[in-house]
Amino acid sequence: SSTSSHTHTGRRGFHFSSLRGTVQPELSKKLYRLIKSENNLISAHETAAKERVSIATQLSEWGEQTGDEAISDISDKVGVVLSELGEQEDNYAHALDDSRGTLKTIRNTEKSVQPSRDGKAKIADEIAKLKSKEPESTRLVVLEQELVRAEAENLVAEAQLTNITRQKLKEAYQAEFLATIERAEKQTMLARHGLRLLQLLDDTPVVPGDVRPQYQHAGQARQILNDAEDDLREWRPETGANVGDNATDVGGSTSSNATPVQSPRVNNGGGYSGSEGNGGGVSRIAGGGGQGLGQQVQGTTTASTTNAAPGVVV
Amino acid sequence: SSTSSHTHTGRRGFHFSSLRGTVQPELSKKLYRLIKSENNLISAHETAAKERVSIATQLSEWGEQTGDEAISDISDKVGVVLSELGEQEDNYAHALDDSRGTLKTIRNTEKSVQPSRDGKAKIADEIAKLKSKEPESTRLVVLEQELVRAEAENLVAEAQLTNITRQKLKEAYQAEFLATIERAEKQTMLARHGLRLLQLLDDTPVVPGDVRPQYQHAGQARQILNDAEDDLREWRPETGANVGDNATDVGGSTSSNATPVQSPRVNNGGGYSGSEGNGGGVSRIAGGGGQGLGQQVQGTTTASTTNAAPGVVV
Repeated sequence: SSTSSHTHTGRRGFHFSSLRGTVQPELSKKLYRLIKSENNLISAHETAAKERVSIATQLSEWGEQTGDEAISDISDKVGVVLSELGEQEDNYAHALDDSRGTLKTIRNTEKSVQPSRDGKAKIADEIAKLKSKEPESTRLVVLEQELVRAEAENLVAEAQLTNITRQKLKEAYQAEFLATIERAEKQTMLARHGLRLLQLLDDTPVVPGDVRPQYQHAGQARQILNDAEDDLREWRPETGANVGDNATDVGGSTSSNATPVQSPRVNNGGGYSGSEGNGGGVSRIAGGGGQGLGQQVQGTTTASTTNAAPGVVV
Repeated sequence: SSTSSHTHTGRRGFHFSSLRGTVQPELSKKLYRLIKSENNLISAHETAAKERVSIATQLSEWGEQTGDEAISDISDKVGVVLSELGEQEDNYAHALDDSRGTLKTIRNTEKSVQPSRDGKAKIADEIAKLKSKEPESTRLVVLEQELVRAEAENLVAEAQLTNITRQKLKEAYQAEFLATIERAEKQTMLARHGLRLLQLLDDTPVVPGDVRPQYQHAGQARQILNDAEDDLREWRPETGANVGDNATDVGGSTSSNATPVQSPRVNNGGGYSGSEGNGGGVSRIAGGGGQGLGQQVQGTTTASTTNAAPGVVV
């Protein structure tokens, strides 16, 4: 809508601006909506993660039902890889959620700066009206003192806004990009091991009545899962100069290092793999961390604006 | 459910197996459900892609509204990167959809093999009953001839099932893993360029009343987007020996090479960037391709089973 912020906040009583979204001051309206969209994005990745893990278990169980030892083993272990892909997707969703929290800091600051702008504009308005109606009014002196105070207050508010906006914008999207890289690098490793597993499945066509040669790759397949587990454990975020600041430790990166790669098959009824029946125990808690830098930045900002009185015209 | 497949297909009329999901023959039930879950997975990634692109535009428009030239330029260009992340997410969803189609081939074969198993079992059943009731019946000879024919037919069906299952399972998940790698590699490149963009945003706190130095990185920011565009254009899938077969060309990989990286800001009202006002024209069509191998494999299978009469006991 093109309603000016001043008109908007000045209205009272029954009006259309009580509909959700429009109750936000004009200044924070766009970010308010963006943050809602981020929420939808996070939900979508969470759903993808959940479906991925469900598919992993289903694939494993389907493979078992085929009664084909090779398919059963490979589908179970491909299921393990898929399940871990899902876990990484879920970690990604958690990291996006942290970043969303950072954007809220900008939105809250925008929200709090709006009354300061409005207050200043209101006093200037009053002075202009009074000057044309009662140019000799003694109230003009009081109002002009009020205006100087409002301008000083607004100058601080605007400095806070630009400082918070730049710092938090940078922080939020650095975190999103780092989480994107983490998910990508981990999922690439997993997918490569998944491809190795599929190579162990002999798909040479047989003629009716022929018996396939005995499946002999269970050991190799187990080794591939071990390799995948090692790769995940050894993964570290880059700490290159091009990343900037010390925001490299995105939430969720450390928690995934401790979880072993396990079979997604809950009912491990087959007799060919006795050592992998501990599936279904996925209980990784991602998120947390990554907010320390934000706290520090905010602290710095507050301090610098408080000590900045010399710069304010009073 | 634990209902045996024989009982299940033998029933007629009003029964509980008319509820969705349970109408599938037992043999294809698990894969039927897995394919449904794959559909949910695809929808989730499509939603994530859509939200990502929407957030990109919103971020750009929010940045413009701040009136801060640096934030406006960086947010617009970070928006471009986010929008392209969303496009890659959408390409991934399309590739998963192709893979889902491949899994359907297995399910359809499972479905068609069920009657063959049931038919064989039914005749064997009849013979057993007749032998105990009328061991001298002349119908026994006819039934035993029928059984041999049913067994031959089933032998072919089972060979088709194992061939299709192994080939298509391999093909479907190779495609998913390759698509995962493609999305990961492209999104990693994009995220790194996104981090470079954020480095151009000076977030040194200012004191109230201070004016920030003039933003001078528009050229560098433009160059980063050009680099991102070049990287995407030059990306190629690996063709290493470890990938196997010739399934390396996953749908969507070629189509994205032609699209330039453009501004997501539809109303480019700002005066600081005149050359990027052609946003909103994202019209990439992903998918297609990747099925040629499947056709060929299926053809091979049919031929080999048709010529396989010598192996069948008649």
